[in-house]
Amino acid sequence: MKLLEEKIVEYGEVIGESVLKVDCFLNHQLDIELFNEMGKEFKRLFNEEKITKILTIETSGIAIAALAALHFGVPVLFAKKNAGSNMGADVYEAKVFSYTKNKEYNIKVCKKYISKEDSVLIIDDFLASGSAVLGLIQIAQAAGASVAGVGIAIEKSFERGRKAIEETGVRVESLAIVESMKNSQISFK
Amino acid sequence: MKLLEEKIVEYGEVIGESVLKVDCFLNHQLDIELFNEMGKEFKRLFNEEKITKILTIETSGIAIAALAALHFGVPVLFAKKNAGSNMGADVYEAKVFSYTKNKEYNIKVCKKYISKEDSVLIIDDFLASGSAVLGLIQIAQAAGASVAGVGIAIEKSFERGRKAIEETGVRVESLAIVESMKNSQISFK
Repeated sequence: MKLLEEKIVEYGEVIGESVLKVDCFLNHQLDIELFNEMGKEFKRLFNEEKITKILTIETSGIAIAALAALHFGVPVLFAKKNAGSNMGADVYEAKVFSYTKNKEYNIKVCKKYISKEDSVLIIDDFLASGSAVLGLIQIAQAAGASVAGVGIAIEKSFERGRKAIEETGVRVESLAIVESMKNSQISFK
Repeated sequence: MKLLEEKIVEYGEVIGESVLKVDCFLNHQLDIELFNEMGKEFKRLFNEEKITKILTIETSGIAIAALAALHFGVPVLFAKKNAGSNMGADVYEAKVFSYTKNKEYNIKVCKKYISKEDSVLIIDDFLASGSAVLGLIQIAQAAGASVAGVGIAIEKSFERGRKAIEETGVRVESLAIVESMKNSQISFK
């Protein structure tokens, strides 16, 4: 997606050879007009699929999922990393490792909000190792829901996330695919 | 706002006399069509204000702020409760106490995304003690930004949040004001 690639080139900060910081428009300050265009693009890409719900994970996936959901006309369900005291125990869980926080999370989704009637589209901001998306697929499968696909804003194709997800039989669509960030030069696929 | 009050009555769970659980449409599963209507209503309420940015706090404020931002045509900036390793040190901070998690957070916003040129609308899901909103006001003030107002989805008027915020001179608009939840009966103002 041209618009997203342009934002990455203009505002992205490369740290080392593997961290791409896009706080300015995607992870801290959120460019909602961009997110709206991304939502339209996800709708175009998955238009043939019957989607009942968008599944994402806190925090950075939420606003992207929310704007996409507007175009699909479905609710968002987000897995919680830091569940509050009133979440209850009737949950599906999966383990997810966050490399930016160097921490393992036990992500949780209430059982009553996902079932075998659902066909979910998983949305997230980044695809790197694929740990978060694999955790969400695991939760959908535990609920008997089908996974219509995975929609990603920015994929770092030099990490191994896509392969791991495609091995589960799930289709992945990324709006921008960063192939390399060597010498702070971002190149797209 | 009629639509929101109806959702609260239909799906809200009252726990004790002060906890209102609205996981079904506001905090875990997100009713994006409702959020879109809420966004329109915030725009109507604050239409006279010149707003440059919507300021909120993770997690539950984000999607509400995102849909509101679509109607204002401005970006969202969210304060982080659990800042990652690449956030940097150049931040405004405030202390916020979460009663649902019984925990104090040091919320953070990068200095480069808020300045004296900004006039922010603060958006959050709940207004109870007011701790989160007061923290956001403190951050806006530290940046020299003006606060055009506070927009809340659900206010629990029997807690003291509104008074504390209005004492800072900031206008508060809540889309649903719950006056009492005694005997699990929800009554609105």
